[in-house]
Amino acid sequence: MAASTVGPEIEKLIQALSRLPGLGPRSARRAALALIKKKETLLVPLANAAREAAEAAKVCSVCGNIDSRDPCSVCSDPARDPATIVVVEDVGDLWALERAAATKARYHVLGGVLAPLDGIGPDDLAIDTLLGRASAPEVTEIILAVNATVEGQTTAHYLTDELASCHVKVTRLAHGVPVGGELDYLDDGTLAAAMRARTAF
Amino acid sequence: MAASTVGPEIEKLIQALSRLPGLGPRSARRAALALIKKKETLLVPLANAAREAAEAAKVCSVCGNIDSRDPCSVCSDPARDPATIVVVEDVGDLWALERAAATKARYHVLGGVLAPLDGIGPDDLAIDTLLGRASAPEVTEIILAVNATVEGQTTAHYLTDELASCHVKVTRLAHGVPVGGELDYLDDGTLAAAMRARTAF
Repeated sequence: MAASTVGPEIEKLIQALSRLPGLGPRSARRAALALIKKKETLLVPLANAAREAAEAAKVCSVCGNIDSRDPCSVCSDPARDPATIVVVEDVGDLWALERAAATKARYHVLGGVLAPLDGIGPDDLAIDTLLGRASAPEVTEIILAVNATVEGQTTAHYLTDELASCHVKVTRLAHGVPVGGELDYLDDGTLAAAMRARTAF
Repeated sequence: MAASTVGPEIEKLIQALSRLPGLGPRSARRAALALIKKKETLLVPLANAAREAAEAAKVCSVCGNIDSRDPCSVCSDPARDPATIVVVEDVGDLWALERAAATKARYHVLGGVLAPLDGIGPDDLAIDTLLGRASAPEVTEIILAVNATVEGQTTAHYLTDELASCHVKVTRLAHGVPVGGELDYLDDGTLAAAMRARTAF
């Protein structure tokens, strides 16, 4: 759209919104219009929230989580089990596990997975700091909660080798039927893994 | 997500983003994470753009367009044809016509369509101001560019009746085959309308 039609301030808002994941140029215009129409209830709160989040958000120097404090609220929670570290690829995975209240352990964010074709090697991930944390005497188990993709599993194998010297138990998430899932819609690999890992009823 | 996991500032950003049309709670979290990870290139510019747009955006007192000036840049453009007014439902429709450079006329934003079941009657739309503008001596044509929905066409018929006393020509957008469209994928109504309105080749 020509800048002359909507004014530079509105054009800049559309541009900024169109860079959000999940919003293209067309939906960014629609979003900008909806925000401007409800200026006091939507646009001003968004501006304030974005400014405050930009000031407050910090990367946790221990685990790599994003929070408004450093160390993050998980790392500084005395109720968390110091013996176990859950390794995740990304902060979003950490948040997902926290939403599910899946563990009372602490986390370690790798910041990605090994992907030689994209030029991402061990030095690009937070592996050195993980080995350092895993060598602490109180740590007894490392849970590899990486995605069940080829890159994720490759990374898991690499980490298992590297962690061999740390004298910790290395575990991974179980494969199986998703809760609420129907067998008929599952892929063969998941079904075979669920069958192999069957448990007593 | 429990507020304790991400801190109140980040939680507020997720809440504000989840109110955008096109973003649900899950994609709002993903967007917030992407913004925070690229704080300087994405989050801070979004905060500034939202604040500046909130300060600058105005509803045009003439046509109802949203712009950073009042009257809007279309209404205050001397190159625009003062004899014709294009009536649209919403500001988004006006922006779409401007992007297409479909007309050099001025606009009038109704702010919706007649929808008796939703309690939206003529008094809820900018119809009085349209009749006032249509009565000006320089205005000779009103183009009804409302959506081709039942409510849009009902509103067009109502406006045609109301505009009868204004001594203006009332026209509407042509129905027909979209440019680039394939006949096989078009609905019967569009095909029949395109056939009726066929033109010399």
